[in-house]
Amino acid sequence: MFPKKLVKQVICDYDNPIVETKAGKLRGVIVDGTYIFRGIKYADAERFHMPKPVAPWDGIKDAIMFGPVCMEISTPIAHDAYNVPHFYFPQDENCQYLNVWTQSIDKSAKKPVMVWIHGGGFATGSSVELYAYDGEELSVFGDVVVVSLNHRLNCIGYLDLSDYGEEYKYSGNVGMADIVEALKWIKENIAAFGGDPNNVTIMGQSGGGMKVSSLLQMPAADGLYHKASIQSGLMYKGKDILPEQSKAFAAKVVANLGLDQGSIKEIEKIPYFKLARAVMQVQADQGAGAGMMSLGPVKDDDYYFGYGPLNGFREETKNIPILVGSVLGEFTNNFNIELAPGEKNKWDDALKARLFKERLGDQADAIVEEFKKAYPDRNTADVLFIDKNVRLACMEYTEGRAVNGCAPTYLWLFNLECPLNGGTIPWHNAEEAYMFHNAEYLEASYIPGVSENLQNLMTGAWVSFAYYGDPNKARNLPLWKPVEKGVYHTMIFDAETKSACNHDTKLMNMLPDADTTNRGPRRRAPILGGGPRQST
Amino acid sequence: MFPKKLVKQVICDYDNPIVETKAGKLRGVIVDGTYIFRGIKYADAERFHMPKPVAPWDGIKDAIMFGPVCMEISTPIAHDAYNVPHFYFPQDENCQYLNVWTQSIDKSAKKPVMVWIHGGGFATGSSVELYAYDGEELSVFGDVVVVSLNHRLNCIGYLDLSDYGEEYKYSGNVGMADIVEALKWIKENIAAFGGDPNNVTIMGQSGGGMKVSSLLQMPAADGLYHKASIQSGLMYKGKDILPEQSKAFAAKVVANLGLDQGSIKEIEKIPYFKLARAVMQVQADQGAGAGMMSLGPVKDDDYYFGYGPLNGFREETKNIPILVGSVLGEFTNNFNIELAPGEKNKWDDALKARLFKERLGDQADAIVEEFKKAYPDRNTADVLFIDKNVRLACMEYTEGRAVNGCAPTYLWLFNLECPLNGGTIPWHNAEEAYMFHNAEYLEASYIPGVSENLQNLMTGAWVSFAYYGDPNKARNLPLWKPVEKGVYHTMIFDAETKSACNHDTKLMNMLPDADTTNRGPRRRAPILGGGPRQST
Repeated sequence: MFPKKLVKQVICDYDNPIVETKAGKLRGVIVDGTYIFRGIKYADAERFHMPKPVAPWDGIKDAIMFGPVCMEISTPIAHDAYNVPHFYFPQDENCQYLNVWTQSIDKSAKKPVMVWIHGGGFATGSSVELYAYDGEELSVFGDVVVVSLNHRLNCIGYLDLSDYGEEYKYSGNVGMADIVEALKWIKENIAAFGGDPNNVTIMGQSGGGMKVSSLLQMPAADGLYHKASIQSGLMYKGKDILPEQSKAFAAKVVANLGLDQGSIKEIEKIPYFKLARAVMQVQADQGAGAGMMSLGPVKDDDYYFGYGPLNGFREETKNIPILVGSVLGEFTNNFNIELAPGEKNKWDDALKARLFKERLGDQADAIVEEFKKAYPDRNTADVLFIDKNVRLACMEYTEGRAVNGCAPTYLWLFNLECPLNGGTIPWHNAEEAYMFHNAEYLEASYIPGVSENLQNLMTGAWVSFAYYGDPNKARNLPLWKPVEKGVYHTMIFDAETKSACNHDTKLMNMLPDADTTNRGPRRRAPILGGGPRQST
Repeated sequence: MFPKKLVKQVICDYDNPIVETKAGKLRGVIVDGTYIFRGIKYADAERFHMPKPVAPWDGIKDAIMFGPVCMEISTPIAHDAYNVPHFYFPQDENCQYLNVWTQSIDKSAKKPVMVWIHGGGFATGSSVELYAYDGEELSVFGDVVVVSLNHRLNCIGYLDLSDYGEEYKYSGNVGMADIVEALKWIKENIAAFGGDPNNVTIMGQSGGGMKVSSLLQMPAADGLYHKASIQSGLMYKGKDILPEQSKAFAAKVVANLGLDQGSIKEIEKIPYFKLARAVMQVQADQGAGAGMMSLGPVKDDDYYFGYGPLNGFREETKNIPILVGSVLGEFTNNFNIELAPGEKNKWDDALKARLFKERLGDQADAIVEEFKKAYPDRNTADVLFIDKNVRLACMEYTEGRAVNGCAPTYLWLFNLECPLNGGTIPWHNAEEAYMFHNAEYLEASYIPGVSENLQNLMTGAWVSFAYYGDPNKARNLPLWKPVEKGVYHTMIFDAETKSACNHDTKLMNMLPDADTTNRGPRRRAPILGGGPRQST
């Protein structure tokens, strides 16, 4: 975001820097040589309706400040606000804004465009939610054009009202349609920001990764991107939201609001918080855990064809190379889960033996032996905190692409232990600061002498992929082979980065099933208090 | 806040750093040598009731993340979000949290304590609202203990329900009572953070300055602080909120909620947003501009004795030295007000002559001549954008203290032109980054070769004042005399800082009255869109 120490005076004059988009002129800022345009409106939309391009204007509009982000049903302090530093921002339904970082505004520069799609499921988050998302360092390091965007989320992005009239046909997918509209804006305008509209990489983490994999299954997005990166964004045995489910959900919301077929038009005008409360009520009835994922793109086999591994990868995407990966700890790392007091690296053998038995069952000894083979340099305690679901999903996805004869798919795993609490295995979101070259900005992530090298490697790999569809042009990176049937080549990013092959295939299949909630007790909230926003 | 570039690994272990407060142990972080404790709960409170000390606990509580900030009636993107970079944060009524930055946790260190009280009137803001508020650089530069705090605001801080029962006697002042409770916490606990409980400076800007001047008029705060700094926090011809006004306001809110004497207890439990809507309705009935200042401390001559210059400075505060000042442009600077297109420094004489006539009336020529004497190095266009109200109030306040035989009061004016838009005179909030030694973090404020020197001088002056009650021990600062009757010695902070005497007294009295809204048309919002939060 803003506060790195500046070394040059920022340029922000009435007439400099100016870029002319199809709809009109924009004024941004030049920060230590990087051109930054914040809060560019890329589309307008009525609630529950498809987005439209913005109307043209005369004169120059400011793009020096971020635009508002989408309304969230609630905005508490995140449980991981310390190790995943957040940048909260004012919310508004009118949220179709994007940001651009670039080294040149010369139309002939034609640099690769890296489009960041934020996480938070399909329910929360924004283009500026995490400090890791700041695009300046990535743009400088790679001489690339970085774009990040906000779009509609939760009940205003994915409430399927298609049963209530033709005008709501796509209301269950308008959140994704906003992203498609942003990609169209990029296609039409990014050359003016020094970007190559014919070399666009879509990238996202967590929910952002899900959005990337969803875009691949949406015909409306075809031709708008050329490469893709999915980071911690796949779930093993992933399920689609089917029309009968999304319509039933919407019907309950409509009923909670006291509306029906005749009065449905009112749902476009009621205050957001009333709509949100009606949605929360349905989610509460569905039981704990349903909230975050109960609203998302609807597999209508028209706008969206459903999760690739379940429904087949669309022919039109076969030429898209993809980077796919996850982090060792994801949601089950030892910052999130507390199995015993004190530093896990100081636990004695007796304690570990007890925990292995409790958590891994009869197979405990065999699993620990297999873990030692896969991760000889790790403390065996880490087997209690490693992720299974996302890693297996990444293996399934990459192999599925390979088997179907698609363009190369490269698999990675982020394995860097962070010094927090005497040693913490990498958490969901831990790799983003490294891929964005922002590790020096994050307290919990920064390790002098290690972070600098690792982010050079990782940012380099992503930039190489954006330039060439192949990460192997990155400096100092070991050879990285694409996945083949049954052969899971994996780049393991760590203090010593190395490539491996099938190093954890057996281990993954031995680990007991564990979702994000049942592996162990959650740690206490990292702050002293603080409930959800507007809890009362 | 977080993202400066780190040079060392942050220490955040289960057992380091730990500080023991009266109520229990806290764990913080050590960032490049600075101990930081974020989100320390200093009090608990029921809605509309006085705060109480927190209950003791066993074990160690985390203080690594900021605590939630007070609910705001609305949280739009600030119109000055670019030149006054904001850090928005999740809101909760349970908001009594403070943060500490210190160079030592040795109980014998006894360093001066600088307590920052945030601005936003009595209605909005938080201890982390602005990047300028980050205490790390100030703590390092001055080897001082910096504390910042959140407290109750708007209708939960200042709704005077005293007509509805003895238990609500102080409900019109509980927001201030939270601050007093924080000062008590500091008195009891700050030694454990290396601070001197007998050398506490209370400081604040805008609303924070009003809170400082209010504390001086509150017996409950006596003995809890020893020096004071009021930055852009006084308004000429300032008015008190009298009990008949505050009670009438509360009665309308109660009526809007459909409550009465019998059912009043329900007001403690209704959702915040319902309470806020009832308040907004009353504010709307009072007309535009009433919103921000309609709720604040009530002059009940018990808890609060009213604005000093109106009611007399309390005898108990006569030994308190005070720093008082304002910035040249305050709310009427040329970022906020747009009188003609283009850079004001490039306006030609004809245009300026027309604007002088329009804005300054028949006296225009004489005023411009007087402006040239007061500010010979400035473009005469600046006379159109200079503040009168806050500066005159600062002169009145400091002279009033002098006439009453109080401890020395030092007057300052921040005059640095910033490069934004080809030259912008300093805005309300512009000096804070310089006083906190954070200028390098703010895009609009940073001027290589100038900012470094100026913030060394300003931070040095504030630190000298915190140590000695006298800013004159700061390195390289010109002699700074306290104000006397009719003698307005003023330190003018600028690229070339110098002291002046009565340089603008005549000018101030010639300028036409202008409040924050009528000097000229507001500039368009600096972003492309974005209404208030939850506008619908």
